[in-house]
Amino acid sequence: MAKEQTALVISEKQLLEHWQGHRRLTRRLIEAFPEDKLFTYSVGGMRPFATLVMEMIGMATPNVIGVGTGNWSTYDANAGQGDNKPSTKEALLELWDKTTEDINSNWKKINQQRWQEVDLAYGQWEGPGYWILFYGIDNEIHHRGQGYVYLRSLGIEPPAFYER
Amino acid sequence: MAKEQTALVISEKQLLEHWQGHRRLTRRLIEAFPEDKLFTYSVGGMRPFATLVMEMIGMATPNVIGVGTGNWSTYDANAGQGDNKPSTKEALLELWDKTTEDINSNWKKINQQRWQEVDLAYGQWEGPGYWILFYGIDNEIHHRGQGYVYLRSLGIEPPAFYER
Repeated sequence: MAKEQTALVISEKQLLEHWQGHRRLTRRLIEAFPEDKLFTYSVGGMRPFATLVMEMIGMATPNVIGVGTGNWSTYDANAGQGDNKPSTKEALLELWDKTTEDINSNWKKINQQRWQEVDLAYGQWEGPGYWILFYGIDNEIHHRGQGYVYLRSLGIEPPAFYER
Repeated sequence: MAKEQTALVISEKQLLEHWQGHRRLTRRLIEAFPEDKLFTYSVGGMRPFATLVMEMIGMATPNVIGVGTGNWSTYDANAGQGDNKPSTKEALLELWDKTTEDINSNWKKINQQRWQEVDLAYGQWEGPGYWILFYGIDNEIHHRGQGYVYLRSLGIEPPAFYER
């Protein structure tokens, strides 16, 4: 019991670096797509990679702010679906990089007890802070894996999974 | 600095449950594949889902034992590629379930300082214990996401990502 409470599995700083490492890889996947395919191509009737990337972006900073402050009002399930939706690879990468900065600056504001504090994220999903943040990271890995299949089926060699 | 050292982001027990939750979802994906497609079907010249699953299995228990004990001799990059390779869905699920038990029993043996201790996994990859275990979990999420595309392109609705 005491062991479970005290062992340092991963620090806040390490988790941030772990995630940003994944995000650097996702960024390389965005770059690897031909511009038109990024917004239009998919397999099996799934969403194009740019739409999956917008889901990652729509969840990233709001999750960090929500866990950090308990304010879940900023979530927008349709983020980037309106007039502000990036329509070029350059604009998508720009929004990606802005998100990188927003994650970093809001990460510092997460109070340490929030990692284990149970909250109702977006008024809908109940769990401790770490659980909410892991959901967003895992969702990114999941959809990026799908992007690998899109690239392969386009005959494009994707960036190595182990490079972060 | 003190904050980084002491904040409990995720406990050992929570990380195990997080991973086993992912593994329950991966198991449902195996079940969702038609028997023949599981071993033969792929998109873009990639490996069939059963081969990806064998990679997950080949890495799972050896990672836990390696982090737990520093003994990396059990890794077999070709696990299940020989005569013992499962050739039916039932046999693959049986091996999956055996791995579930092996992970649980070896997890208890991880000494708490091993999470942060830097080791040379399999004599090749240097990093702290958490980093090695996260690599295996993330690799599973990555390849399972590819399995989602295989299922969708077969016209099969995959299990929901958020159900663990």
